[in-house]
Amino acid sequence: MPAKEVSNPLSTSNAQQSPAQNGSADVTQSLKSHSLAYIEDGAGIRVPVTEIALEPSPNGEANAPLRVYRTAGPGSDPVVGLEPFRAAWIEERGDTETYSGRERNLLDDGKSALRRGAASAEWKGARPVPRRAVEGKTVTQMHYAKQGIITPEMRFVALRENCDVELVRSEVAAGRAIIPNNINHPESEPMIIGKAFLVKINANIGNSAVTSSIAEEVDKLQWATQWGADTVMDLSTGDDIHTTREWIIRNSPVPIGTVPIYQALEKVNGEANKLTWEIFRDTVIEQCEQGVDYMTIHAGVLLRYVPLTANRVTGIVSRGGSIMAGWCLAHHEENFLYTHFDELCEIFAKYDVAFSLGDGLRPGATADANDAAQFAELDTLAELTQRAWEYGVQVMVEGPGHIPFHLVRENVERQQELCKGAPFYTLGPLVTDVAPGYDHITSAIGATEIARYGTAMLCYVTPKEHLGLPNKDDVKTGVITYKIAAHAADLAKGHPGANERDDALSKARFEFRWRDQFALSLDPVTAESFHDETLPAEPAKTAHFCSMCGPKFCSMRISQDIRNEYGSADSQAAIAEMYAGMREKSEEFLAAGGKVYLPELTVPETSGSRG
Amino acid sequence: MPAKEVSNPLSTSNAQQSPAQNGSADVTQSLKSHSLAYIEDGAGIRVPVTEIALEPSPNGEANAPLRVYRTAGPGSDPVVGLEPFRAAWIEERGDTETYSGRERNLLDDGKSALRRGAASAEWKGARPVPRRAVEGKTVTQMHYAKQGIITPEMRFVALRENCDVELVRSEVAAGRAIIPNNINHPESEPMIIGKAFLVKINANIGNSAVTSSIAEEVDKLQWATQWGADTVMDLSTGDDIHTTREWIIRNSPVPIGTVPIYQALEKVNGEANKLTWEIFRDTVIEQCEQGVDYMTIHAGVLLRYVPLTANRVTGIVSRGGSIMAGWCLAHHEENFLYTHFDELCEIFAKYDVAFSLGDGLRPGATADANDAAQFAELDTLAELTQRAWEYGVQVMVEGPGHIPFHLVRENVERQQELCKGAPFYTLGPLVTDVAPGYDHITSAIGATEIARYGTAMLCYVTPKEHLGLPNKDDVKTGVITYKIAAHAADLAKGHPGANERDDALSKARFEFRWRDQFALSLDPVTAESFHDETLPAEPAKTAHFCSMCGPKFCSMRISQDIRNEYGSADSQAAIAEMYAGMREKSEEFLAAGGKVYLPELTVPETSGSRG
Repeated sequence: MPAKEVSNPLSTSNAQQSPAQNGSADVTQSLKSHSLAYIEDGAGIRVPVTEIALEPSPNGEANAPLRVYRTAGPGSDPVVGLEPFRAAWIEERGDTETYSGRERNLLDDGKSALRRGAASAEWKGARPVPRRAVEGKTVTQMHYAKQGIITPEMRFVALRENCDVELVRSEVAAGRAIIPNNINHPESEPMIIGKAFLVKINANIGNSAVTSSIAEEVDKLQWATQWGADTVMDLSTGDDIHTTREWIIRNSPVPIGTVPIYQALEKVNGEANKLTWEIFRDTVIEQCEQGVDYMTIHAGVLLRYVPLTANRVTGIVSRGGSIMAGWCLAHHEENFLYTHFDELCEIFAKYDVAFSLGDGLRPGATADANDAAQFAELDTLAELTQRAWEYGVQVMVEGPGHIPFHLVRENVERQQELCKGAPFYTLGPLVTDVAPGYDHITSAIGATEIARYGTAMLCYVTPKEHLGLPNKDDVKTGVITYKIAAHAADLAKGHPGANERDDALSKARFEFRWRDQFALSLDPVTAESFHDETLPAEPAKTAHFCSMCGPKFCSMRISQDIRNEYGSADSQAAIAEMYAGMREKSEEFLAAGGKVYLPELTVPETSGSRG
Repeated sequence: MPAKEVSNPLSTSNAQQSPAQNGSADVTQSLKSHSLAYIEDGAGIRVPVTEIALEPSPNGEANAPLRVYRTAGPGSDPVVGLEPFRAAWIEERGDTETYSGRERNLLDDGKSALRRGAASAEWKGARPVPRRAVEGKTVTQMHYAKQGIITPEMRFVALRENCDVELVRSEVAAGRAIIPNNINHPESEPMIIGKAFLVKINANIGNSAVTSSIAEEVDKLQWATQWGADTVMDLSTGDDIHTTREWIIRNSPVPIGTVPIYQALEKVNGEANKLTWEIFRDTVIEQCEQGVDYMTIHAGVLLRYVPLTANRVTGIVSRGGSIMAGWCLAHHEENFLYTHFDELCEIFAKYDVAFSLGDGLRPGATADANDAAQFAELDTLAELTQRAWEYGVQVMVEGPGHIPFHLVRENVERQQELCKGAPFYTLGPLVTDVAPGYDHITSAIGATEIARYGTAMLCYVTPKEHLGLPNKDDVKTGVITYKIAAHAADLAKGHPGANERDDALSKARFEFRWRDQFALSLDPVTAESFHDETLPAEPAKTAHFCSMCGPKFCSMRISQDIRNEYGSADSQAAIAEMYAGMREKSEEFLAAGGKVYLPELTVPETSGSRG
């Protein structure tokens, strides 16, 4: 595919090249070989990529630049937002209409909005008019896919994933993948979540009653996106909840997810007993009109499952799950999200909002993993998946949580079987409970395992999990750690081309192209700064040694000698032949119960410089 | 087992309670519930443990303190060393003798020793006289085990592992576990490496030609041990190499491993071609007399395997492997470590030094994983394992390296089969190459997987891997990350009692015992400081909420309500019965291809406070 460098029409600046955004003037050093380019399909679709320019090898051979997907945003002006580049695609389909929308209510911003609601007045960007399906139409990507229609969103995804667009369409039609793209979030770049595609990661942001501000949250969104978050969930629970979300969506080049019960709870002053279906439905519509792309709905927390959690070590740890459990118990009625599920499907179908079926009964301790409560809820999520599909609504299913390593695989295999391949979206899981402060690591271990067996998206965990709200550093650490888990799973699945970046970096390492090692790494800034702690001088970046062995002796140099000696095709063929015979003989010996003894082979004559 | 608190006779101070050692005055806050205690077997053996005192639950019930193994050291005065408490055990066996030992040579400290060798004059502790087996005796733990002898070292290990001593003896006798305890390192607390026991971790320290000093290395040793390193390897390659090692061994409560070819290379001024068997043997004896407990020997790098690495992406990345490969090529002779292997066995048997058979041809890139060179060397390591066992010498086998996640398991299963269960000791493996700066994480993912399937010890990787030498922070991060991997594997293996700490911490979390959460975590200092970033005030540590949800709503509180309602044995029995019937019915439906439908159950009557 042709790639050409152009200025970015979707953002006002290039965040990856902006020192200010990285909190250090040094950042351009590490990232100066990164540039924004576009891959085009020749039919009007173009996908932004980071093009990483590489130095030539020591033998003079050029190394082709490596291209990896990136969003063209972030880099927007927070009070103006990104360009709604998908708007034309949506309009052209002719199955939607604008309308006046639900009337704003000061309560949307929480009880303190009367005091602090001034935040919404600061907005300088467009005030989009909400759009919905015209009566009788379904406007979901799944619906189009089932009709055999290839949308521009699907073509964008195929170009981004470097796969055939028919794979995209068929997986979406079958429900095995989703493209979460609310028609009211035209700023977002299409992406796909499904096990046939690259594993995706989600970063959570959001204010809480205790701390944080709108500007901070937009900043975290841009920061998370810059480092590679594929979707972002806004889990705000504090003040200005509607306005915070508005700013986030207008600035987000990635799909935004929410848990609408959080806002609904704010509207009833935090008293779960006072929640009603009507308040909840109103909140969902409010968020559909704003452009939320997927919503976590805890419709699987059924009244009869609640007692199953009573003797758990940590009970119910999902916030949404415990809200609904509390409501069910207080009213002694079935969960209204379950009883009104069909109405939710009808609403979601009008905006193309995807379900993220919440696992409200997920285990919060390894002791509670894979228990009756967890798997009972999963049975219900499987039932709800089928019901949503009947409405043409896209669905993914959320998963745990805290699971010991040997029980992780069962989670995804069971979910895939029961939910007929609907994408699984898990939080870690954490494989031990003993390391608060390091739960990005305890969970990345479980995340790699669960993604290897088919989980499509991983929700990141930051070092602050269980302890406090993540700051910007924590967001970055969480994102990079989860890029590692997702990428390791892609490699393990043998995803086509997944190894290109590994191989390019390993080659740069072998050839002592230090700058290329930094440029190719997931976090060039950290890689370069760690190197410079020991060997700060600029010449060390081109030196053919490193601080581990020092200049006197170098294992890489000896390997280069070996390659010079035996690396030719002729030598290799001779070696392969000798070695095959040797192995065979050795295996015969072993098979006969013999002691291993390998006859010595003659190595090809060495050059004059050797003894 | 009875535990009682006593002063520590093996060290002059208690490092875990010393603020100075932790670089912050706050540390005592987090660790004040930690104390040194001893578990005794009633027959003279006592094992140090950290006793973690816990607060009572909110309902007034007491929570028993949790005990976890710790070394009684560190905390020694660096220039004096630890008490040689194992000396009496060794002497009592009556099969060893002291002797004058090899004469010191200024070259032992490297070529610059004439200039800088003053370091050895600073030593204020005992200058131990070397000890060896009397002629004709083998003094290894394996030899004793094969004779059916239970040594004090085995009893210490059994008490430490909370297992039957016969399991210890039989595993050591069979070669499936090792107790690396050189008779010249009587300061060390016995520990066992084998898949039937807790997974162990090793931390590497050591100076290099570029940086670092003796005092820094002893400090890193104490630091690594304090955070839980089970063994430490001294990989020094710079100046004062002999003296650095002397200080490290005299101060080490854990077994010390080395790679003697590094020092041998220093003795020939870094020119691999000039190495000889005699120089190497002399270096090995020098280190045996000092008390090195296990040595990495790259005897599997055979001349004929070298060409197999020629077309790898990163060739040979093991320092020792490339030294030997370079030597083999230069001389066109077989590796002298292989041809003289029997002599090495004879030497090791006299001091009870264990082999760590080096994987000199391990892959240095995921592209090179599980290739012909790697597995050819493993075949030879299997042969050498058998030969060492014939001399009664303990052996473990080293493993990779860089391996994509799906190929990790094959490594340990193949090693276990070929090497008849000899302990596997792996470096990670890293499951992707794209994250320099985060290789503690990329490798902890692979380490958990490989340990789950039987790897007995994991060599840590720090964030500085591939980039520079680790500082103290990196050492701590590496150790904690590997404690996570090892512990996650113990849980996955269902190791008896491994879940106690997880469950205690989860219970503390559920009950909002914040101080107990910190105290029970692998790194209390970090856990507490992260919590305090958001909610610093002291009352927040007893508050029944956290910064995630704030004081208004709390999922844990709702769970507590559920427990109060349904947590009794009677309710649980009723629920279990109902639920069993429900599941059965659901499974019948599913089996019949039906849609999931679960009949609603009646939940027991709620109390008056509910609607």
